Amino acid sequence: MRRSALAYGLLASVALTSPVMANDDVKKASADPNNWAMQSGSYNNWRYSELDQVNKSNVKDLRVAWQFSTGVLRGHEGSPIVIGDRMWLHTPFPNNVFQLDISDPVGPKIVWKYTPKQDPSVIPVMCCDTVNRGGVNIVGDTLIFGQADTTLVALDANTGKEKWKTVNGDPKKGETHTGFTLVVGDKVIMGTSGAEFGVRCHVTAYNIADGTRAWRAYSMGPDEDILVDPEKTLSLGKPVGKDSSLKTWTGDQWKIGGGSTWGYASYDPDANLFYYGTGNPSTWNPAQRAGPDGKQIDQKWSMTIFARNPDTGVAAWAYQMTPFDEWDYDGINENVLVDLKVGGEDRKVLVHFDRNGFAYTIDRLNGEVLVAQPYDEDLNWATHVDLDKDSATYGRPIVVASKSTFLNGPDVNSKYVCPAALGFKDQQPVSYSPLTGLFYVPVNNVCMDYEPFQVSYTPGQPYVGATLSMFPPEGKTNTGHFTIWDAAEGKIVHQHDEPFSVWSGVLTTAGGLAFHGTLDGYFKARDQEGGAELFKHRLPSGSIGNAFTYSQGGKQYVGIFSGVGGWAGIGLAAGLDKPTDGLGAVGNYAGLKSYTDLGGTLTVYALP
Amino acid sequence: MRRSALAYGLLASVALTSPVMANDDVKKASADPNNWAMQSGSYNNWRYSELDQVNKSNVKDLRVAWQFSTGVLRGHEGSPIVIGDRMWLHTPFPNNVFQLDISDPVGPKIVWKYTPKQDPSVIPVMCCDTVNRGGVNIVGDTLIFGQADTTLVALDANTGKEKWKTVNGDPKKGETHTGFTLVVGDKVIMGTSGAEFGVRCHVTAYNIADGTRAWRAYSMGPDEDILVDPEKTLSLGKPVGKDSSLKTWTGDQWKIGGGSTWGYASYDPDANLFYYGTGNPSTWNPAQRAGPDGKQIDQKWSMTIFARNPDTGVAAWAYQMTPFDEWDYDGINENVLVDLKVGGEDRKVLVHFDRNGFAYTIDRLNGEVLVAQPYDEDLNWATHVDLDKDSATYGRPIVVASKSTFLNGPDVNSKYVCPAALGFKDQQPVSYSPLTGLFYVPVNNVCMDYEPFQVSYTPGQPYVGATLSMFPPEGKTNTGHFTIWDAAEGKIVHQHDEPFSVWSGVLTTAGGLAFHGTLDGYFKARDQEGGAELFKHRLPSGSIGNAFTYSQGGKQYVGIFSGVGGWAGIGLAAGLDKPTDGLGAVGNYAGLKSYTDLGGTLTVYALP
Ligand SMILES: O=C(O)c1cc(C(=O)O)c2c(n1)C(=O)C(=O)c1cc(C(=O)O)[nH]c1-2
Ligand SMILES: O=C(O)c1cc(C(=O)O)c2c(n1)C(=O)C(=O)c1cc(C(=O)O)[nH]c1-2
Repeated sequence: MRRSALAYGLLASVALTSPVMANDDVKKASADPNNWAMQSGSYNNWRYSELDQVNKSNVKDLRVAWQFSTGVLRGHEGSPIVIGDRMWLHTPFPNNVFQLDISDPVGPKIVWKYTPKQDPSVIPVMCCDTVNRGGVNIVGDTLIFGQADTTLVALDANTGKEKWKTVNGDPKKGETHTGFTLVVGDKVIMGTSGAEFGVRCHVTAYNIADGTRAWRAYSMGPDEDILVDPEKTLSLGKPVGKDSSLKTWTGDQWKIGGGSTWGYASYDPDANLFYYGTGNPSTWNPAQRAGPDGKQIDQKWSMTIFARNPDTGVAAWAYQMTPFDEWDYDGINENVLVDLKVGGEDRKVLVHFDRNGFAYTIDRLNGEVLVAQPYDEDLNWATHVDLDKDSATYGRPIVVASKSTFLNGPDVNSKYVCPAALGFKDQQPVSYSPLTGLFYVPVNNVCMDYEPFQVSYTPGQPYVGATLSMFPPEGKTNTGHFTIWDAAEGKIVHQHDEPFSVWSGVLTTAGGLAFHGTLDGYFKARDQEGGAELFKHRLPSGSIGNAFTYSQGGKQYVGIFSGVGGWAGIGLAAGLDKPTDGLGAVGNYAGLKSYTDLGGTLTVYALP
Repeated sequence: MRRSALAYGLLASVALTSPVMANDDVKKASADPNNWAMQSGSYNNWRYSELDQVNKSNVKDLRVAWQFSTGVLRGHEGSPIVIGDRMWLHTPFPNNVFQLDISDPVGPKIVWKYTPKQDPSVIPVMCCDTVNRGGVNIVGDTLIFGQADTTLVALDANTGKEKWKTVNGDPKKGETHTGFTLVVGDKVIMGTSGAEFGVRCHVTAYNIADGTRAWRAYSMGPDEDILVDPEKTLSLGKPVGKDSSLKTWTGDQWKIGGGSTWGYASYDPDANLFYYGTGNPSTWNPAQRAGPDGKQIDQKWSMTIFARNPDTGVAAWAYQMTPFDEWDYDGINENVLVDLKVGGEDRKVLVHFDRNGFAYTIDRLNGEVLVAQPYDEDLNWATHVDLDKDSATYGRPIVVASKSTFLNGPDVNSKYVCPAALGFKDQQPVSYSPLTGLFYVPVNNVCMDYEPFQVSYTPGQPYVGATLSMFPPEGKTNTGHFTIWDAAEGKIVHQHDEPFSVWSGVLTTAGGLAFHGTLDGYFKARDQEGGAELFKHRLPSGSIGNAFTYSQGGKQYVGIFSGVGGWAGIGLAAGLDKPTDGLGAVGNYAGLKSYTDLGGTLTVYALP
């Protein structure tokens, strides 16, 4: 069965007349498993596909169907999207976009290529390689994506011609874009990066029709800036109250407070809420952020999961995982929306594997934390998350004093903190399989030494203030796990060693498989039951992209970007050698240079 | 059977004591079909392998065994070399070199990477992309290669540590390196590029032991510069006589005379002669090169095949294919050494598919031209090559006056000249199969309009003086052929259309197959009998590399570089748009942008 993009009205050349309502369009396109219609597969961020042609018994026969070199080096995150016989593919900086006609099974044709001209001075203000994980979104005949320099671009999806462009931030101040763009209703919502440069970050909504700004919600600042309703926005079951953010910062520090929003977003159409996380407070030297009393202070709403209404931006609830961060445990990791029986009750939850090493199962309607357990065994910076509602520390991690880089103080090297700054999981998204009801988690098994130091703020200059070394946990040589997780119980079901951190996003399918890439350049298929490797094949370069699948001409394809880079691959991507360069990533992943070099390629596998 | 590099003494860490004699070493390594020990497979440039595990019936089952992204964009010419379980791989500028351990069948490990620091100002003086087709040579434990900036480098093949470096030319004057380095005896002989910049080019020999210069033979100039013996060096059966070059230039023009030596070289150990060709005289505007009488003049020894003694550099013979070039028909194409029955007699010949569209079969011991016939049907600039020994025009092409850009004069557009400047064949080498006794020729089926104009010489500035358009012959839309050639008869045996010029070198094997890449990104296997396509598979990018094969752990691998570029791909490689840019190549290959983008990858195929 040959299906064309026309079937989705994508190629209709009629002008946009009425306000676009993305939901139905996106839901329809992503409900058809032949498509991979959005970065996360669907609004709920499951990264699960109903396609089952490739299954446990035949996956060993997968072979490279075709490949496409993107013409760009450095880290390739995210994935293409596919609707009908068209694929849209994005690259890291300079953020080229291609439309491919994939109707020919032996190889694609390039229909158009969009090559933005961006000022390369944005490159040095991108903290963690020139990546773009947010990729492209499609709604109606409009293709929307964000560039590194924060330009939000809408193209005619069929012709590649510009419809409108708007600028979300200023790279001269360290504001960049690598993360999500989410199309919901008549809006596109966009995150921002910059917490390593003292940017006060936000999410901002633009109208799809014309690119005008609809609302902006900062991560910190006055209530009207952060779009909370003091009476109605909840945190841990209670209204956040007036000045919930301002109260938790010393003086004006919130103005350079960080809280980047560079991960993925998910959306619950029934609740009409979208979910995303905020990153670290700036700087990484916690001493500089102490409260007026010289003690820890929360720095809200950094390190927070927000549930917001996409029409107004107003928050329904907020939950801060790591108050007063002292380790760069950005809270930006994706939130996967599932309905689970937790403690015997059917709950609408989100599941979130935080950088801080705890996996949270949270009621997604009100923000109540149901489960919070470490998803790797070496976590040592906190004893647990206090879930006793009557406790003074309700909802908070209980920090181990010896691992507190604040208590140890500046210019003291806090040794052996696990996880490392890049978390037990970083940008690489997990997958949820409804077949098993379990989560498939690409894990960094990494610890660190962390030495904060005094740093002063200059716009557009790094505002980090810490020296890091990273390394595997004691007694281990590998820095990765592939972990299967029960989010209702908060338990590891299976755990497999990986030589390097799995910096690539997982895909699960109705074929009973879980797919992912590896930094050393393998594409792997695993059994959803147990996680055993059923297939592995060497890609041209290390992969930090997300596995995806689609069907075309009756054939299932499973694909992934290779192109090593990101924070883990920054040594290769930016040509750095010193072990503490790249905030410690260079030393930790030095072994990668025995396996792979740069180069962006899309590889698409199929059965013979 | 697991074979290690040790078997070849390569990993022996003993110091070099006696002068290296490359011949035995290279012959031994290249005689073992498990290796691909030199760029051309063997000294005779057959590009033929005795390996036959992959054959006509199973080739359809080939699949990608593993790939290696080189970390470099732009055109990837040549191929890696393989000895035992080690592969050495080179890239275009910046000319990185890797040693890979290929003993693991699922993917290689990088043992070392050599990253020269070259001044990027060499890039704009490379005429036809930042390619390097000469790749690496190995002799004993020494790895030798030339960089774009003409630096000749010798590394310890096992460790990647520098042994010595020497500089062959000056990029500030337009002297660059892309072509051969040939190890013979105790010397390495190196070609040079620069005829588009008025460089007087040469081949130069260096002592392998320490990199000191042994001899240099210019393409033009006084006898002592060009290393001819007026009495003994033959041309068309006669001694060349005194001042054979000087006599054929007006005034001092030979000093900026071109005659680049950027192709491949072959070597006959029995005759102790090596063979290579020289390129166009500078400038491309023939009016500026007219003789003192205002008429055509030969401009020797541009456009010439030389047979030279590698020990002394002295020429045994020289044959000029295109005296007084008016079309940029560089004579640099490789010379394949075979023993053939020609006209009923066993002859030791070389076979040469010239840019000018004639395929020459030449006695390689004395330079007698036995056969000279067009290898594509559209040749129209000459009626034939005169092989009548008694004729005044013996050995010369008989030019069609209307196609003479000299007779038409400067600022006149000579229309519809076939072949175009890039010849019916350019850098992409042919293969000879002893199974069939036939040649497998990757052909450009391209014509041109050529308008010369006055240009003045400034060192390091382009010295071209012509505007070109290129296009397929009338009535055709494709620009390529894959042609099977009988060099004894001078006849096309089979010809297959290719959508684009086949800019990739051919490999033949004892499995009865001929392999090559395509500009639009396919790797193809053809039947040596008849040339039918038996397998095709899409590579990540267009290929201008040379197919090669080796065996490791009992398994035959067939590999090729992809990474579009070279002259044909210069539009993509250098981001040019105007049809006449890249001396007309941009317009002719504009269609490529619908198929491929940049990116260097080695792909290695094997049977399941
Ligand atoms: O705070 C920020 O603004 C910010 C931005 C980014 C980014 O934009 O990629 C990363 C991080 N932080 C970060 O903490 C981090 O671990 C990280 C990893 C990566 C990556 O692509 O591999 N990006 C980022
Ligand atoms: O005259 C020269 O010095 C010179 C150099 C080169 C080169 O070094 O690649 C090419 C040519 N000429 C040339 O004429 C030509 O057609 C050509 C094609 C290519 C290529 O790599 O695709 N190089 C060159």
